Amino acid sequence: MSSKNNVKKYTEMSKDELKQELVSLKKEYERYQAMEMTLDMSRGKPCKEQLDLSMGMMDVLSSDSDLACEDGTDCRNYGVLTGIDEAKELLSDMMENNPDNIIIFGNSSLNVMYDCISRSFTHGVMGNTPWCKLDKVKWLCPAPGYDRHFAITEYFGIEMITVPMSPEGPDMDMIEKLVSEDESIKGIWCVPKYSNPQGYSYSDVTVRRFANLKPAAHDFRIYWDNAYGIHHLYDKEQDYLIEILAECKKAGNPDLVYKFASTSKITFPGSGIAAMATSPNNMEDIVKQMNFQTIGHDKVNQLRHVRYFKDIHGMVEHMKKQADILRPKFEAVENIFEENLGGLGIGQWTNPKGGYFISFDSLPGCAKSIVAYCKKAGVKLTGAGSTYPYHKDPTDSNIRIAPTYPSLADLKTAATLFTLCVKYVSAEKLLSTMN
Amino acid sequence: MSSKNNVKKYTEMSKDELKQELVSLKKEYERYQAMEMTLDMSRGKPCKEQLDLSMGMMDVLSSDSDLACEDGTDCRNYGVLTGIDEAKELLSDMMENNPDNIIIFGNSSLNVMYDCISRSFTHGVMGNTPWCKLDKVKWLCPAPGYDRHFAITEYFGIEMITVPMSPEGPDMDMIEKLVSEDESIKGIWCVPKYSNPQGYSYSDVTVRRFANLKPAAHDFRIYWDNAYGIHHLYDKEQDYLIEILAECKKAGNPDLVYKFASTSKITFPGSGIAAMATSPNNMEDIVKQMNFQTIGHDKVNQLRHVRYFKDIHGMVEHMKKQADILRPKFEAVENIFEENLGGLGIGQWTNPKGGYFISFDSLPGCAKSIVAYCKKAGVKLTGAGSTYPYHKDPTDSNIRIAPTYPSLADLKTAATLFTLCVKYVSAEKLLSTMN
Repeated sequence: MSSKNNVKKYTEMSKDELKQELVSLKKEYERYQAMEMTLDMSRGKPCKEQLDLSMGMMDVLSSDSDLACEDGTDCRNYGVLTGIDEAKELLSDMMENNPDNIIIFGNSSLNVMYDCISRSFTHGVMGNTPWCKLDKVKWLCPAPGYDRHFAITEYFGIEMITVPMSPEGPDMDMIEKLVSEDESIKGIWCVPKYSNPQGYSYSDVTVRRFANLKPAAHDFRIYWDNAYGIHHLYDKEQDYLIEILAECKKAGNPDLVYKFASTSKITFPGSGIAAMATSPNNMEDIVKQMNFQTIGHDKVNQLRHVRYFKDIHGMVEHMKKQADILRPKFEAVENIFEENLGGLGIGQWTNPKGGYFISFDSLPGCAKSIVAYCKKAGVKLTGAGSTYPYHKDPTDSNIRIAPTYPSLADLKTAATLFTLCVKYVSAEKLLSTMN
Repeated sequence: MSSKNNVKKYTEMSKDELKQELVSLKKEYERYQAMEMTLDMSRGKPCKEQLDLSMGMMDVLSSDSDLACEDGTDCRNYGVLTGIDEAKELLSDMMENNPDNIIIFGNSSLNVMYDCISRSFTHGVMGNTPWCKLDKVKWLCPAPGYDRHFAITEYFGIEMITVPMSPEGPDMDMIEKLVSEDESIKGIWCVPKYSNPQGYSYSDVTVRRFANLKPAAHDFRIYWDNAYGIHHLYDKEQDYLIEILAECKKAGNPDLVYKFASTSKITFPGSGIAAMATSPNNMEDIVKQMNFQTIGHDKVNQLRHVRYFKDIHGMVEHMKKQADILRPKFEAVENIFEENLGGLGIGQWTNPKGGYFISFDSLPGCAKSIVAYCKKAGVKLTGAGSTYPYHKDPTDSNIRIAPTYPSLADLKTAATLFTLCVKYVSAEKLLSTMN
């Protein structure tokens, strides 16, 4: 972060300057406390205006509709375990995969990931030993990452190994070494595009190195959670991610990846459809289990999505409208951060081109305190540490900012408060180390 | 089965009489084969007319609707893990339980049961040892019973023990003895009302004996699948089942039962909502896990159901319309069976007052052959043996008849063919034992 002309870096301030700064920051903070705000910025939830965009979906099926698929299947009745053909087609275009490689599930891709791990524990992966029979199962966790991913592996008692992230993706040297040497490493969490929380997209080199991994464990799988595949903020400046299944096939590693996606942040979270793309071998393995778990997922909702969007173009146009709502929010936060923190040397943040989050890194040892100060003034953020396995951020510096849910006005207030807390906590921290 | 005046029991026929009978039956069978029917009576699927009854549900939510709950929650967004209050209220009335004891899930109660067993394997029940760490897990299976239940326990490698059924319910002497002696018995499958396939409803005594079980295993649970709780065929003649959770509480056994239900055979199978009723302790145990598995189920669909039915009275009226469609089908089958098989001493069947099935018992050793003959003439039935654990009917005599899906005309043809095949196979069987 280069310093601006009119500001002095906190790190270059004298003790007295810092003390003076603290006095004025404290006054300012008290002014915010007096506002008695209650703002929740802790989760990546769409805002009301985004949800309103999908209300037309409530009209596409009516009592006059024929709820039959193109092949004649009555969507109202039992059956069709892996999803109706037209939903596979729509989701396969969204995921850039062949419809034959797609399974349509229920309303939650997180649930599908959980189930994949649960199935691996009880029945194993493609004939390999069920993980519940192993002494140790380990998992690679690029971090900062998605707290709900880490929560699943923690719940199953899997030992999580943190892998550092960079703007190109996770540290592939470390990953290649670890998976080739340690047979107990069975998987890795990836949010490859507009990653949660940094908004990074894996480079072509990173994706190809993933596809060419040589894991010691035959049942090692990459959990490729492409949650934000078409969730761009800008029309022209978009990240591009090369398609992992195709790369795996080319690399002679066709079964290496489970790829997940859903319409949760396209239509209605909780009332969307989730999908998985994977190799024929993996599909056979998974469908075998699904046969015991359910008779089928909600086909009427699958049909509703297809009739609403018609095809991928409908979906892309829809996402442009969402971007128009979200872009000003991301830009507002970034502008306020730049305005209030630029050049102070006390924080760095990402400026993602898509996804749901901005990642902020404070000076070491400040994140927990910043989140606590925000909370005391009525703004709830994602808990500091949440972006790391076991909620343990080794440097206590990463904070996930979720700009989507609040109104633009509230967001600006919250972002300003946040920068104030960053300054206050940083000044205190720097002072405390001076003696 | 008492013999009618004008028929002679097959079991009392001479060799020559049986041979003569076979000749005429064969001719008749060939006539059916020539019809080249293709009828699927293998599953308990609602028919088109039943599904049409719920089409109004497609109109209750539109783009003009407020998709907020009574408490203000926006059903379109993330959250509300255990279901919206109004859905709990509707389903609790349907299940005769307190809304506080209800969890609303996704579209499939079978999936909930699968997940309960899977969770018990990976994480155990209320702090008990996870079943995957045990050498042996056993399960009681009242039979004939529901094939998909048995399939789940078989998939998990659970040793299934068959318990005989009677019109009062399963053999409680056997159950009481087994569960009190064997700690490795962890559960039992029950369809307590209009059971699958017999249509039996457990007597008050049976339910109370269940509630008073003293299992050796602390983590023994009754899987009480009340799939047909309000699925009566008649307005006045209805079976009544006493409520198991209340009985368990009275008996000092509050945590003994997981009770399941869904709207699959009320609205649209696959697009309904599933629910579980259980004790606060069990709920806490289950919700702890759900937190990792999903952010929440489809609240819009929950709201759709509530707005459509309004309350339990709406649901009950709706089920009367379904009964009007199904009653003639059940009666047609029962009449044809009586007409063609009554007094012949070669088969018995149930005459249920609700549910989805009629159970037929042939002479020992005939069921597989009867199903095969039906299939060769174009009528697919549930595989013989399917109603028993491991698909092994010890006497090869039980066949599940599913009268709901075919049209009345098709059903009559199929039922007549079925009786013909029963007669043919029985005559052959009796002859073969004569020398």
